[in-house]
Amino acid sequence: DKTSYNLPFFLQTQTFVSAKLLYDFLTAHLKKLMSDEKCSAEKVTEMEDVITQMDNYTQQELADLFVKYNVKSPSTGNDLTPPTSFNLMFQTSIGPGGNMPGYLRPETAQGMFLNFKRLLEFNQGKLPFGAAQIGNSFRNEISPRSGLIRVREFTMAEIEHFVDPNEKVHPKFSNVADLEITLFSSKAQTSGQSAQIMRLGDAVEQGVINNSVLGYFIGRIYLYLIKVGLSKDKVRFRQHMDNEMAHYACDCWDAESKTSYGWIETVGCADRSCYDLSCHSRATKVPLVAEKPLKEPISFYLNVVQFEPNKGAIGMAYKKDAKLALEYLAVCDECYISDQEKLLSEKGEFSFETEGKTFTLTKDMVSVRRFQKSLHVQEIVPNVIEPSFGIGRIMYSIFEHSFHIRQGDEQRTYFSFPATVAPYKCSILPLSHNQEFVPFVHQLSEAMTRNGVSHKVDDSSGSIGRRYARSDEIGVAFGITVDFDTVNKTPHTATLRDRDSMRQIRAEVAELPEIVRDLANGTLMWAEVERKYPIFEGQETSRKE
Amino acid sequence: DKTSYNLPFFLQTQTFVSAKLLYDFLTAHLKKLMSDEKCSAEKVTEMEDVITQMDNYTQQELADLFVKYNVKSPSTGNDLTPPTSFNLMFQTSIGPGGNMPGYLRPETAQGMFLNFKRLLEFNQGKLPFGAAQIGNSFRNEISPRSGLIRVREFTMAEIEHFVDPNEKVHPKFSNVADLEITLFSSKAQTSGQSAQIMRLGDAVEQGVINNSVLGYFIGRIYLYLIKVGLSKDKVRFRQHMDNEMAHYACDCWDAESKTSYGWIETVGCADRSCYDLSCHSRATKVPLVAEKPLKEPISFYLNVVQFEPNKGAIGMAYKKDAKLALEYLAVCDECYISDQEKLLSEKGEFSFETEGKTFTLTKDMVSVRRFQKSLHVQEIVPNVIEPSFGIGRIMYSIFEHSFHIRQGDEQRTYFSFPATVAPYKCSILPLSHNQEFVPFVHQLSEAMTRNGVSHKVDDSSGSIGRRYARSDEIGVAFGITVDFDTVNKTPHTATLRDRDSMRQIRAEVAELPEIVRDLANGTLMWAEVERKYPIFEGQETSRKE
Repeated sequence: DKTSYNLPFFLQTQTFVSAKLLYDFLTAHLKKLMSDEKCSAEKVTEMEDVITQMDNYTQQELADLFVKYNVKSPSTGNDLTPPTSFNLMFQTSIGPGGNMPGYLRPETAQGMFLNFKRLLEFNQGKLPFGAAQIGNSFRNEISPRSGLIRVREFTMAEIEHFVDPNEKVHPKFSNVADLEITLFSSKAQTSGQSAQIMRLGDAVEQGVINNSVLGYFIGRIYLYLIKVGLSKDKVRFRQHMDNEMAHYACDCWDAESKTSYGWIETVGCADRSCYDLSCHSRATKVPLVAEKPLKEPISFYLNVVQFEPNKGAIGMAYKKDAKLALEYLAVCDECYISDQEKLLSEKGEFSFETEGKTFTLTKDMVSVRRFQKSLHVQEIVPNVIEPSFGIGRIMYSIFEHSFHIRQGDEQRTYFSFPATVAPYKCSILPLSHNQEFVPFVHQLSEAMTRNGVSHKVDDSSGSIGRRYARSDEIGVAFGITVDFDTVNKTPHTATLRDRDSMRQIRAEVAELPEIVRDLANGTLMWAEVERKYPIFEGQETSRKE
Repeated sequence: DKTSYNLPFFLQTQTFVSAKLLYDFLTAHLKKLMSDEKCSAEKVTEMEDVITQMDNYTQQELADLFVKYNVKSPSTGNDLTPPTSFNLMFQTSIGPGGNMPGYLRPETAQGMFLNFKRLLEFNQGKLPFGAAQIGNSFRNEISPRSGLIRVREFTMAEIEHFVDPNEKVHPKFSNVADLEITLFSSKAQTSGQSAQIMRLGDAVEQGVINNSVLGYFIGRIYLYLIKVGLSKDKVRFRQHMDNEMAHYACDCWDAESKTSYGWIETVGCADRSCYDLSCHSRATKVPLVAEKPLKEPISFYLNVVQFEPNKGAIGMAYKKDAKLALEYLAVCDECYISDQEKLLSEKGEFSFETEGKTFTLTKDMVSVRRFQKSLHVQEIVPNVIEPSFGIGRIMYSIFEHSFHIRQGDEQRTYFSFPATVAPYKCSILPLSHNQEFVPFVHQLSEAMTRNGVSHKVDDSSGSIGRRYARSDEIGVAFGITVDFDTVNKTPHTATLRDRDSMRQIRAEVAELPEIVRDLANGTLMWAEVERKYPIFEGQETSRKE
């Protein structure tokens, strides 16, 4: 978990995000022009072309388009400055001198890639394995807006699941294969079709989803979103189209949630192939690979490409620094070696910098050797499946999807948060200020604390109906009322009320905290509670006033 | 939860922290000089004086002391530059223009003060109530060091407990009054006495601890630290001395933990009186107060000081902006009004800025009115008790206090993490690679997942003793071994092993997950498990090879 990153390949992702806002802005402008009746069919086709190719324009071409289509500031009508590059990472300086730049991380993921070797070791060198992280990320958004949807500081949770690229099959896929999920494939988007509900197993089988590991995580993301309170009919998975997918990803699906702001991305789920590990590996010259024991004890042949340094010549030229050059040459990857080999043959030399020193090596100092090596284990660069959760956006969606109005009473609103995520699981309400209720309220409250059930005692004045309405308004899942029967009858019982159905049962005070605990943990359903305990009828209304 | 703060009163805290490092450095130098045999008694007294007064020197006086006592760089022997002020907050700029400065928060607390009005409303306007927050804070430490102890990005957890200053009594104090805690009072420190174990109730009664609310939190902090794995004999509470305590705090105690770096502060617990709310209130011109209904329905008299604006004159002078000036005048506090009143009588006018506009008001536009008002509720600025936890330092202390070596075997180290905090609660170990064990391992693993018990299956090769050693090394609290008796006998049983005592019992496979769950939750003790299930003797050694 690092405060700062100076790795250049972050910028790419960030530039992408920034450019996307620009594309959206220009697209909206063009669509407005196209909707004008006076716009000729020819012009419409031209603008449609521009929209399709949006991703492929250079900065200058984009600037020209802004002039050509007369794009003005929406608020003032003034001319716009041409688009400029802008780093979405927040910069700061570290240490008292002020000359060591640092950047706030724009995502949590990279820390897990940097720790890959340790994580692999922790899993006893075996694939597959996963790591997960939750934390804050920071992006210097140009125009934060839409509540929790576009903010400059936000909580992300990311999973990096590392797999053998030759074994992209998830053993538990069958657990989710029967889920029926709304999928909006890239093909459907391109051909103007709408999203369609598919069985997840069929989607993987038919190649709509690239592989069953990706499919497994799509299934688990879906189950998670539904469990925390999103509506089934307001969740879909949209596949990235070729032009919006990062060049290294082999497939990418966004879980989207339908809100008053339209469909918004809440979770990204990408198969990032071996991109991140390869990049870190190249930047740090540390191989980030897993070793795969071969099932058959036969050796297998690997094509090896390596630098063959002339130690004497390098030593002569660089004296005590020669060791640094030799260390550097020893860890270069094939791709880099081939590039330098070309330079050697074309220009007779190549240069590099390591540990702050620059070296220029000539043909007599280094050559490239290619040979086959017999190995008993195979070295593989794992692929990574990356589900990436925008916690704020998920929370925002829960709020929208859980907000309801009681039928026939527009003043009575409530949040139908599932008990698992409701901040308070239960309200405890004494019927009135009568002192006889106090010991029962205490007993219930203490037992709930012991059982780890978050709850709220509301002994303020106000009718029981009014206090229930207040409890519903903030999404408390259940409510217990202590009344005169609690005090006067043995065994002592109280009512337990379900927020969504407003139905009530009556159970012993001693049992209630554990019933609520099990309801809140999801190990007990309200329907079961109703079967087991006597229904308590029609009291809420009569108690209202 | 805010990314940035621009409030000036943060700087004070931060400068204090920075200065403390400087004091430590100078103190260490002087102590070294004092320890020299050649150092005269007179010189020793002089230097002792300097150390005692350290906090009171100005920046220039400190610079002079560095010269006078010939303080040099410890690594190079070079002269030092004079001390300079340095902002410990990381600065960045917000938005694309780059001209809106922002600071990373140096503590989490202030967000809760800013939200005070909402929190109070959430608690139905009543005191006392508390809020808690956990998150990252950032301080641009000059020299980060000592592992997790001094870092630039760290996780903090803070509680703000708001109380009526006239009722600083905690109703649950009796729950912790009997705790025997090592207290190092400011008096003991000044008079050279050592820390002493005291009953918490006595400490509050004798006034060693200022009040029972502060005492209650000291007790709860102590219980928390012990529960997560700190050693009782390596935890003490040290009271701030008058010269190290912030001027606004009325009492402050640090929970300190003894480590190889000496006693380090892990939790601060301060009674900050009404300082924070008053500051925010003054800066924002929003009263942050609670209303206290008076028990007796008699009215009570309040001295009111307020501006009495001449609306006509202000309207004439400022036209449509007059409304802004009137709004501003309406919310000023007594202290500010008195200051402006002085200006009015001395200079005949005073100026202020609000909403970006500057106003200058003369005697004919505004006067000050003082009168008594009868109220039925009393407005009070709550005091706040603030326990502030350094999560990294607590974790570091857990690591040091939990690290042990098995008697007679220096190679076998283990962490005695309490089950509640152990990252893994249980290992599941099949005796060998025999396929017959697999279904039992699966059954155990799935039941543990269902019960929310984090666990690790270790089916790698290696003797059972070796795998237990590996499991102990990372502090897994319990271990289950599936062996041939598990497979061949009915009912199917397996062994359950306690990491610290290495003792084992035998129980049914179907029961084990729930036993481990209860052990991990702390609702079941190992001693009870030993009483209920048959002990499984001496097998670990025999299985070792």
